[in-house]
Amino acid sequence: MGQPSSLEISRASELKPIEDVAGEMGLGSHLLEQYGRGVAKVDLAAIEDLADRPKAKYVVVSAVTPTPLGEGKTTTTIGLGQGLNRTGRRAVIAIRQPSLGPTLGIKGGAAGGGHSQVVPMERLNLHLTGDMHAVTAAHNLLAAMVDDHLFRGNALGLEPADVSWRRVLDVDDRVLRNIVVGLGSRTDGTPRQTGFDITAASEVMATLALSTSLRDLRERLGRIVVGYTRRPEQRPVTAEELHAAGTMTVLLRDALKPNLLQTLENTPALVHCGPFGNIATGNSSVVADLIGIHAGDYLVTEAGFGADMGAERFFNLKCRVSGLVPDAAVLVTTVRALKVHSGRHKVVAGRPLPTELMAENPDDVLAGANNLRKQIGNIRLHGVTPVVAINAFPTDHPSEHDAIRRVAEEAGVRCALSTHFAEGGRGATELAEAVAEAADEPGGFRFLYSLDAGLRKKIETIATQVYGADGVDYAPAAAGALDLYERRGWGGLPICVAKTHLSLSSDPSLRGAPTGWRLPVREVRASVGAGFIYPICGDMRTMPGLGSDPAAAHIDIDDHGDTVGLF
Amino acid sequence: MGQPSSLEISRASELKPIEDVAGEMGLGSHLLEQYGRGVAKVDLAAIEDLADRPKAKYVVVSAVTPTPLGEGKTTTTIGLGQGLNRTGRRAVIAIRQPSLGPTLGIKGGAAGGGHSQVVPMERLNLHLTGDMHAVTAAHNLLAAMVDDHLFRGNALGLEPADVSWRRVLDVDDRVLRNIVVGLGSRTDGTPRQTGFDITAASEVMATLALSTSLRDLRERLGRIVVGYTRRPEQRPVTAEELHAAGTMTVLLRDALKPNLLQTLENTPALVHCGPFGNIATGNSSVVADLIGIHAGDYLVTEAGFGADMGAERFFNLKCRVSGLVPDAAVLVTTVRALKVHSGRHKVVAGRPLPTELMAENPDDVLAGANNLRKQIGNIRLHGVTPVVAINAFPTDHPSEHDAIRRVAEEAGVRCALSTHFAEGGRGATELAEAVAEAADEPGGFRFLYSLDAGLRKKIETIATQVYGADGVDYAPAAAGALDLYERRGWGGLPICVAKTHLSLSSDPSLRGAPTGWRLPVREVRASVGAGFIYPICGDMRTMPGLGSDPAAAHIDIDDHGDTVGLF
Repeated sequence: MGQPSSLEISRASELKPIEDVAGEMGLGSHLLEQYGRGVAKVDLAAIEDLADRPKAKYVVVSAVTPTPLGEGKTTTTIGLGQGLNRTGRRAVIAIRQPSLGPTLGIKGGAAGGGHSQVVPMERLNLHLTGDMHAVTAAHNLLAAMVDDHLFRGNALGLEPADVSWRRVLDVDDRVLRNIVVGLGSRTDGTPRQTGFDITAASEVMATLALSTSLRDLRERLGRIVVGYTRRPEQRPVTAEELHAAGTMTVLLRDALKPNLLQTLENTPALVHCGPFGNIATGNSSVVADLIGIHAGDYLVTEAGFGADMGAERFFNLKCRVSGLVPDAAVLVTTVRALKVHSGRHKVVAGRPLPTELMAENPDDVLAGANNLRKQIGNIRLHGVTPVVAINAFPTDHPSEHDAIRRVAEEAGVRCALSTHFAEGGRGATELAEAVAEAADEPGGFRFLYSLDAGLRKKIETIATQVYGADGVDYAPAAAGALDLYERRGWGGLPICVAKTHLSLSSDPSLRGAPTGWRLPVREVRASVGAGFIYPICGDMRTMPGLGSDPAAAHIDIDDHGDTVGLF
Repeated sequence: MGQPSSLEISRASELKPIEDVAGEMGLGSHLLEQYGRGVAKVDLAAIEDLADRPKAKYVVVSAVTPTPLGEGKTTTTIGLGQGLNRTGRRAVIAIRQPSLGPTLGIKGGAAGGGHSQVVPMERLNLHLTGDMHAVTAAHNLLAAMVDDHLFRGNALGLEPADVSWRRVLDVDDRVLRNIVVGLGSRTDGTPRQTGFDITAASEVMATLALSTSLRDLRERLGRIVVGYTRRPEQRPVTAEELHAAGTMTVLLRDALKPNLLQTLENTPALVHCGPFGNIATGNSSVVADLIGIHAGDYLVTEAGFGADMGAERFFNLKCRVSGLVPDAAVLVTTVRALKVHSGRHKVVAGRPLPTELMAENPDDVLAGANNLRKQIGNIRLHGVTPVVAINAFPTDHPSEHDAIRRVAEEAGVRCALSTHFAEGGRGATELAEAVAEAADEPGGFRFLYSLDAGLRKKIETIATQVYGADGVDYAPAAAGALDLYERRGWGGLPICVAKTHLSLSSDPSLRGAPTGWRLPVREVRASVGAGFIYPICGDMRTMPGLGSDPAAAHIDIDDHGDTVGLF
C-alpha cells in the first residue's frame, strides 16, 4: 500500500462550499463569482467592503537560497496557514498561480504537496480561471499591434531593431526563443528577429500583480514601453501611443480579480498572478493581499526563491505599492539545502538525491549555515522579525534539526520544526505559535532604499547589503541604459535585480554566503508599466525548454476519465 | 436619442439565474458548474441524464451565399429561438463561440445584435470560459513536443520539411504566418520554417467540435498526424507516438463541456467551439447538440457561411458523427445579398453600403435569386425541408421582400419575414410558425455520399451536385496526396472542401449560381484526428491580419470601469 500520493490525498479531501470559505473571510456572495466547483473570483469591491474590519497580522514566507529542487516554500505557506487555524487563529494564505509551461514541461503539478495542498489541485495546476491565458492574450495583442504599426508605415518611427516587446506563451518551447517573423509576401508584414517568452515572464503579468485597481492597471498598461524610435532620439514608444492599453485592460478585467480556493483543511487560499522570480517580483498580487489583510487574523503570503530575491522585492516593491506593513517573515530552511550550502554536496533536478547527502551529518548542516545567517540578516535589514521554519523531510536526522535550531538560537531568532507535509496543520502548530509570537513584537519595518537615491545607488545598496557583494560593475551598455533611463525620468523607479536564485551571488555555482565578489550588471531594462528597472546579471532564461522526460508525456485520463500523472 | 445600441440593449436586459435557465432544459444543478455570472458549463453526463426525455425537432440555420458583411445567420438563430418561445414552444439554440482574433482585430464583438443577442455579451466575446485558450494550449503543447523530438535526436525519423503541425494563437497577427523557429544556439532547438494559424483553424478545435465523449476526444487526439517520416516511407507520425495526446485531453477536459448562456429573452443558448468554416466544419459542437436535442421542443443550431459550406458539412460530417437527424433547415436571405448576387452591386467590408444598393429595386433581387434557388436545392439534396427566412433590414423595401417571397413560392418553399433584430422574438413569430410546420413534415434525411465511395468520387459529388461545377481538376500534388491517403487507409473519411464562402464556386468574384466551371483542387490535406480530408481550392487564409482600424484601438474602460467600444 505505502503512503498515499499527493493526488490521492487531494482527491480524498472534503472541500467546503467556496461561498462558505468566503463567508468566513467576511466576503458576501455579492463579491463572489463561481468559476467551476471549489473556485471563485473575488470582486475588487471587497477591498472597500472589508476596510472596516480589523487588520490581520501580515506574514511573508521566504527561504534560504534554494537548491534546484526548491525547499517547500509553498507547502510551508499552506501548512502554516493550516497550523494557525489549528491553534485557534483565523488565517488566509496568498500564493502565486503555477505556470502551465513548467507543470507540463518538466515536473508535473505543484501547489504544495502531501497534507499541505491547495485544492482543487487539477484546476489550480491547469487553466484555473484563465488568468494566465488572459495575460497571454493581452500581451500578444500588443505585439500584433506593434508589428502592424511597422507594416502600416511606422508613423511613430519605431526602430525595428529596438523593439523590445516580444510575444509570450505558457508552454515550454525552446524553439520559440529566437525566431524571425514576417516572412512570406508583402502583406505578411515586416521581417524582423524576435522571440517568445513564457507568460510568467510577461511585463503584463508583472503589471497585473502590482496593480491596485482596474484604473491603476489601465494606467500602468498605457505606460508599457514596447521599443524606441530611431536614433538619435530613441524616444520610448508606449502601449498608449499604439492605442492598445484599453483593450489590454478589458482583456484583463476578470484576470485582475483574485481567485479563491482552499487548502485541504479548508483554510482560504487566494491564488493570484505568477510573475517570474528573477526578471520580475516573484510575488503574488497586491490586490489579493489588499483583500486578505482584512479577512482574518493572519495573512500568510509567499515570496519566490530566497530572501535575497522574493522577500527583498516583497519589501521594497510590493509593500511600497500596497502600503501594507509586514509583521513577521518566515525563512523556510531544509537540512538538504544547508548541506548543499556547505559546498560538500550537489543536487541536480531530475536526478535522485545522492546517498551521502542523506547520511546523518549535522556538521555539514553547520558548514552551510552561513546562508541561513545571511538571509536572517536580509530580513532584519528591513526591520522585520524572522522565524526559521525547518521544513522536515523523512530523510532528515534529529541531530541535523538540532544544528539548525542552534544556528537560529545564536542569531536570536525563533525556530520551529514543521511536519506539515506529512501531517498537515497539526504538524505546523509549533511554527504557528512561533510566528504568532514574532508578529506580536513591536514592528520597525523600513524600506532598504529611498526611491530618490538614484538608480546606481539603489542597485549598489541591494548588491552590497543584501547579496554581500563588494560592489557593482556595469558593462558599457548597462551604464548607458542607466544614464538614458535617468534622463527619461525613470530614475525614481525601484529596482528588481535579475540574477540567479541559486546563489546569494550572481554565480549560481557559489554556495553559502559568498564574499569577495562584485555584481556584474550586463544589461539594464525597464518595466515601466509594472514600475521597476531591472539590471540583468548573468543569463536569464525567459523561455524554458521541455525536459528530457516531461510530465506531459505521462499525463492522461484513466478508464474512468480521471486525470492521472499530473502529480 | 435615436435607437439604443446593441451594447445598451444588452446591458439593459434582465438575465435569469443560469440554473433556472438550465432547469427549464431539464438540467439539474449536479450537471452544472457556474463560470462567472450568467455562464455555466454543462457536464457531458447530461447526455445520458436527458436520454429518456422526448427528442426535440432539430433545425439547422444556414444561408444564401453571404456578402463579406454576413447576412445575420447568428442573429436569425437567436431570433428564431426567441420566436419559437414566443409562440409557446420551448426552444434551445446552439451557436459557435466567437474568435477573439477577429473580434479585436477587425470588427468588434458579435453574437447576434439588436434585440437578438446572447448575453452576457462581454464574456461571450472575450474569454468566455477559456475554451479557446485551452485549445491553444493543447495545440501548442503538441507543437513543442514535435520540435523537442527533432531536438533530441528525432528517433521517429520525422522529416523536418514535412512537419505539417503549426502553432496557433487567438489573435490577428500577420507576421506570425511565416516564421523561422529554432534560431540561436544549439540548445535553442533545430531551425526550421513554420508559422502560426488562428486558434479557430486548429485541428484540435475541429476535433473538439466533432468528439462525442471524453474517451472519443482522447482517441481522436491520438490520431492527429503532425508530419511524415523521411522519404520513401513517408509514414504518418501521430500525437500518440509523441506521447502528447493524454496531456492534450487533460488540457481540454473542461473545454469539452458546452457553455450555457441565454438570449436577451432568456432562451437557453449552448455556445461551444468555433472551428473555421472553410478548412473545417464551421459548426458548433456535437456534444452541445447531443445535450440540446433532449432539452426542449426545438433545437436550433447554426452552420457557418452558405448552405453549400456549413450546412453541407452539418449534414455529411456533423450529423454522421452525432447520429442526429435534422427536421428542417432555415435559409437566411437578405435583400442586400440577392442584389449583390445579381452582379450589379458590390459591397466591401469596412466601407459604407453604396447608395444605389439601398434604392428600391425588386428586379435586382430577382436577378440574384439563382443563388437562393441553388441553396434551396442544396438543402433538398439531403432530403430536408427548407424555410426561407428574410432577415429584414431598415433599408429594405416591401416590394423587395415580395420578390423573395415569390421566388420561394415558385420553388414550393415556405418563406417568412423576420424582424428579430429590431423586435426580438416578437419579430420572428412568422418564421417560428413556418419552421414548426416544416419540421412536422415527414422527413427523408439522407447523406449526400456514402463513405466508401472513394475520395475522388466524394469530392466530385460535392463539387457537381452542391457547387454546380462541371467537374474537378486536381493539381499533381493533390492527386498524389489522394492516392497516398487511400493507401494509408484514410479513403473512408468524409470530405470538407476548403473553398471561398463568398461564391458557390471556388472563385470569390463569381455571383449568383455560377455554371460552366470546374473546381480546381490545388492541394489536399488530412485532419485525421478530427476525421476528414480537406481538398484546398484557392487561397485559404488561416491567420488574419489586424484591420487598418481594428476594434482593439477603440475598446477601453470608461470612468465607471465599464467596457466601451466592444460592440
